[in-house]
Amino acid sequence: MPEKKSIEGDLQDQAISEYRSDLGTTHTQIVTLPGMRTQSGYDLPELQISYQTLGQLSPKKDNAILICHALSGDAHVAGLQPKTGRPGWWDFHVGPGKGIDTNQFFVICSNVIGGCSGSTGPTSINPLTGKPYATNFPPVTIRDMAAAQTKLLDYLGIETLFSAIGGSMGGMQAMAWATDYPNRIRTCVPIASCAAHTAMQIAFNEVGRQAIMTDPNWRGGYYDEKNRPEHGLAVGRMVGHVTYLSEYSMHQKFGRKLQRPAKPEDLFPEFFSVESYLQHQGESFVKRFDPNAYLYVTKAVDRFDLLDGHSAREVLSAVKARFLVISFESDWLYSPEQSRELVKLLKRSNIPTTYLNLDTPYGHDSFLIRNPEFSRALNNFLIGEYHNLSKA
Amino acid sequence: MPEKKSIEGDLQDQAISEYRSDLGTTHTQIVTLPGMRTQSGYDLPELQISYQTLGQLSPKKDNAILICHALSGDAHVAGLQPKTGRPGWWDFHVGPGKGIDTNQFFVICSNVIGGCSGSTGPTSINPLTGKPYATNFPPVTIRDMAAAQTKLLDYLGIETLFSAIGGSMGGMQAMAWATDYPNRIRTCVPIASCAAHTAMQIAFNEVGRQAIMTDPNWRGGYYDEKNRPEHGLAVGRMVGHVTYLSEYSMHQKFGRKLQRPAKPEDLFPEFFSVESYLQHQGESFVKRFDPNAYLYVTKAVDRFDLLDGHSAREVLSAVKARFLVISFESDWLYSPEQSRELVKLLKRSNIPTTYLNLDTPYGHDSFLIRNPEFSRALNNFLIGEYHNLSKA
Repeated sequence: MPEKKSIEGDLQDQAISEYRSDLGTTHTQIVTLPGMRTQSGYDLPELQISYQTLGQLSPKKDNAILICHALSGDAHVAGLQPKTGRPGWWDFHVGPGKGIDTNQFFVICSNVIGGCSGSTGPTSINPLTGKPYATNFPPVTIRDMAAAQTKLLDYLGIETLFSAIGGSMGGMQAMAWATDYPNRIRTCVPIASCAAHTAMQIAFNEVGRQAIMTDPNWRGGYYDEKNRPEHGLAVGRMVGHVTYLSEYSMHQKFGRKLQRPAKPEDLFPEFFSVESYLQHQGESFVKRFDPNAYLYVTKAVDRFDLLDGHSAREVLSAVKARFLVISFESDWLYSPEQSRELVKLLKRSNIPTTYLNLDTPYGHDSFLIRNPEFSRALNNFLIGEYHNLSKA
Repeated sequence: MPEKKSIEGDLQDQAISEYRSDLGTTHTQIVTLPGMRTQSGYDLPELQISYQTLGQLSPKKDNAILICHALSGDAHVAGLQPKTGRPGWWDFHVGPGKGIDTNQFFVICSNVIGGCSGSTGPTSINPLTGKPYATNFPPVTIRDMAAAQTKLLDYLGIETLFSAIGGSMGGMQAMAWATDYPNRIRTCVPIASCAAHTAMQIAFNEVGRQAIMTDPNWRGGYYDEKNRPEHGLAVGRMVGHVTYLSEYSMHQKFGRKLQRPAKPEDLFPEFFSVESYLQHQGESFVKRFDPNAYLYVTKAVDRFDLLDGHSAREVLSAVKARFLVISFESDWLYSPEQSRELVKLLKRSNIPTTYLNLDTPYGHDSFLIRNPEFSRALNNFLIGEYHNLSKA
């Protein structure tokens, strides 16, 4: 059974200083690039991209791997942040000798547009007005996120990705690369992801959006930085957290344990550990995420549809990437069933696809947790495919 | 496959006037009874109970069935409300010739204490202060709800229930009757319920509570009736609704359908049907439910534990009721697994128990939906057991 440590969750609450990364300190940088037109037809006058690179680009420039982050992720994928010492969100899987081996591959990770961790999004200053875009920011799609990543690749002088890899929303970006830039990507690894959200997945995200948009501080998105709709964002994050865990992992971690004896001021005599955990997750999330950005990225995820109303033939016949699709048995939010549907779709279109369902008990969060089997599977696929492509 | 009509959900949105109940119009009444001491040791000075009765009490007073409602239910279990024409929440299953046959049984349904539909709860006037209790209302437990129901039974002159029946939170009340008043109940039917909430079930309720308690209008529970924390309550209800449905039923009902073309004022170009549905559910719920009451009843449900730290022997050896436990295959909130655990627990204590897992696809809501197989199962158990008891 994999070790139960999630950087995203547990580790941030532990003494981060104890954590050692094989990469040591890593840096994130920001580049300003010419603008782009979004799928909805809006011309972003300029594009700011926050990104990190690890490892060395090969002389043939054929070893670049783009790691695409999920809903609340950022460009800091591995190594330790210089100021805070916080490890990257996928440090378990990315580094020298790790699943995604930085001795072999040149790893790029960039913050998505529409987010709030350095790349252009609703908190950015609109150059045309000199004020933050807020909800004047155009809707972004997963395809827009991938398009912005191509601009970064152009800037870095990389024509072709050896691979695009990502979990959850990151898997969607990887797939958008495969369909929209078939000549620029060799392999594609969507993990705990899907071809399109179901009504249930949309519904959980909508609860989060409603929590934000009905918070009186939201004010149509034009909130004061000192009075952000933090309550709404915290509640939205809490809903998310429940869906990221499995019943098993919640039972193991919390069960019906009480956090502490009741205090006289408590409304109810029982304060369950799981309640304390959720409240803490909500509170810490609001410190690092923007409420409008949460609306934009969740909507992008809900909107994503690999086929987008077209036939499989129209969308997939041009795809050249070879796929590794990974799901986790206990993931009920992005179920193995959805990954199997995706695999069927790809195989019917004669796209070489390997499917792996890992038997981890930690729900959707499984993709963020240390897991040697998962690391090995990534490593075997990447090394094997790289070897084959180099021979070809 | 059962017909897909939920009174709780769909029907309220349809022309209610089209609905015909075999019971015609039914009435709910309110009685004021002497007070009671809650499990937490608070003396409620008086007890107001809203209730409905259907059918006739037999001369031997041996045919009384108490139907216990779930989180958002009320005393109006069947027939049409005189003013609104709204059918009772279990009209499909309760009436002449129905699963719970009012030609044969005397049916009682009362609103729980701690709720807000006529029985004493946080919106009631505290006779000691002349003001609403609000959050000065004592915490209530499922056992307190059952205790209040015994006061109603005393008032009605009924010593012994032939059966206590309920879904979800209603099943917990039925079980509290079986353990706490073993000589006053012959049969017990917990449906889509469990012996104790898991961490995941607590977590979903806690999201709802946090949504309410972080709504600036909540004000520690002492809100102005004109400025209630309705946004928080609506969000809480939305979370609940997602968990009451199955992935299948949401897919069938909504899939990825769009509700309408985008309007110029829309933040995003896609407005999914499931988003519209959830918003509507939230909005209509706040018209009929009190935010504080939502805190109290969800906490009562989270706190419920059939064994409550005692051994099965201590709690269950005195139980005399015979059990029918029912679950629904697609119910992931109160899973069949939890019902099986309950059945194991009962059987190990030599309590005669029949278990039925119905293969309906509508999730937790299955217990509220028209379903002839479910009705027959209830009917067979009740008629069979009544016949056996009458002979004994």
